[in-house]
Amino acid sequence: MGAEEVMPLTPENNTPPSMSYPAVTDFLRSGLFRWAGDANSFVGDAYIELVCSPNNPDGAIRDAVLSSGAGKAVHDLAYYWPQYTPITRRADHDIMLFTVSKSTGHAGTRIGWALVKDREVARRMTKFVELNTIGVSKDSQLRAAKVLSAVSDGYVDGDASRHRLFDFGRRKMVERWRMLREAAAASGIFSLPAETSGRCNFANETAANNPAFAWLRCDREDVEDCAGFLRGHKILTRSGNQFGADPRYVRVSAVGKECDNETNEAVFDETDDEEDAAEAAPRRNDHEVHMSTGAAGSEEE
Amino acid sequence: MGAEEVMPLTPENNTPPSMSYPAVTDFLRSGLFRWAGDANSFVGDAYIELVCSPNNPDGAIRDAVLSSGAGKAVHDLAYYWPQYTPITRRADHDIMLFTVSKSTGHAGTRIGWALVKDREVARRMTKFVELNTIGVSKDSQLRAAKVLSAVSDGYVDGDASRHRLFDFGRRKMVERWRMLREAAAASGIFSLPAETSGRCNFANETAANNPAFAWLRCDREDVEDCAGFLRGHKILTRSGNQFGADPRYVRVSAVGKECDNETNEAVFDETDDEEDAAEAAPRRNDHEVHMSTGAAGSEEE
Repeated sequence: MGAEEVMPLTPENNTPPSMSYPAVTDFLRSGLFRWAGDANSFVGDAYIELVCSPNNPDGAIRDAVLSSGAGKAVHDLAYYWPQYTPITRRADHDIMLFTVSKSTGHAGTRIGWALVKDREVARRMTKFVELNTIGVSKDSQLRAAKVLSAVSDGYVDGDASRHRLFDFGRRKMVERWRMLREAAAASGIFSLPAETSGRCNFANETAANNPAFAWLRCDREDVEDCAGFLRGHKILTRSGNQFGADPRYVRVSAVGKECDNETNEAVFDETDDEEDAAEAAPRRNDHEVHMSTGAAGSEEE
Repeated sequence: MGAEEVMPLTPENNTPPSMSYPAVTDFLRSGLFRWAGDANSFVGDAYIELVCSPNNPDGAIRDAVLSSGAGKAVHDLAYYWPQYTPITRRADHDIMLFTVSKSTGHAGTRIGWALVKDREVARRMTKFVELNTIGVSKDSQLRAAKVLSAVSDGYVDGDASRHRLFDFGRRKMVERWRMLREAAAASGIFSLPAETSGRCNFANETAANNPAFAWLRCDREDVEDCAGFLRGHKILTRSGNQFGADPRYVRVSAVGKECDNETNEAVFDETDDEEDAAEAAPRRNDHEVHMSTGAAGSEEE
């Protein structure tokens, strides 16, 4: 990376992706790069463009908007899995990021991986991880490898009697989106992005886009704070203004746990304080221990 | 942290501590801080002083050398455990860092903790961890909590029949240092730091300093590269020049695995490419998977 690199982002409407990228970039105040905002308004040659596709929060498929010999695009394909979106093409970008958080739901394991064409870029990425963390948790690596093996084994030999995670996930997401669209339509005051679909090469059929998050708008004139309005009805969402968007919008999670009658926690609830990348993780007894004023420990059993 | 903070270090001789701190600091090129080198030669008020005590690589007990209302000291107490050094006093610094890597040997779990007096400082540290990693591996947190509980249980009720990790570790380290000092004395060409001891409040007796690493010097006139000389005899060490010191010195690990006859891997060997904080971890089948040009996985069984 040169000393003047910037990191623009590829939004196409008023829904920027997760705020993690700018937050950590701004926090470090590195002399190596700075956050440059919307890629559509970026002018220059030296950049790293982050392309989140499908996008968080709206699930839209995105392409890089910049092109320059000196620039690089990083494709964050965290949500490019059959449960969320039709797999319409074989992803073949220079730098592609994935995570078990969204693919299998093991957000707490904190393991991601990258497919990188250029060996030197891969070497630098590895070096950065080494410097930044002095190594990735082996406990997590072992667990992630085991989980991915189990998922993969489900698709061996076309044996349909096996447990197949992506088929299970697709059924769940289709059902949840059906419920959500019915509820929004019945309410008369909420609108959702139009359903899109495509030929899914994984499912071998036409499949709908079932994003991990719903980008819900409250159309009632007197409701300017949709998240507050829903909270009044015991539905927890994230306000659009957390994504730099209109607070009439909220992001509703479709990847939480199923409804728990004891606590009235619904499928589509989204607590405000959970971390972005841990959203697909189990919520109960989920007390994280960071570096803090106590000894390492956990209340989990 | 202000925009002009610097991070001096507290060495007292030609043995700076592990190079991880300057490496990651220099790499990020943050506008928030820069690496300022030896604390003894630092001039200024705004700083974060890193005090590694016992020090890596020489095991020396260190105190902060700077004092200013605007400055802060961070005490890295990774090696302040009874197997390495007499516990002569109750540590009571403002910010103290620990890790299971050195206390119990679970380096691969990548879990550390901090004891911090100032709530606001603790909050900022937690925020940094959150921004930098979006949460710490829960698999690792659970494992570390279980390991620390098991270690702690060994000392319940003064029942001496229990497995007691620190007593076991002390016996091992005493034995290894005895062997190493005998070998160095018999060679006539190697010298080691003089043995120091102190009243250990944990062991309730006078105990020797048994550092995790030996800072070995080759006294033969014709050997200018001690690490190369030892490598010629199938003993792997880290050259002093990796620590900014004279290459007549090497750092010898005393926390590796016991001798394996099949590979001639000796207790005191230290491979060059292992990572600093992972040194106490098991070495066999220990292939780390970083972000790189392959899918997440592991060759471990």
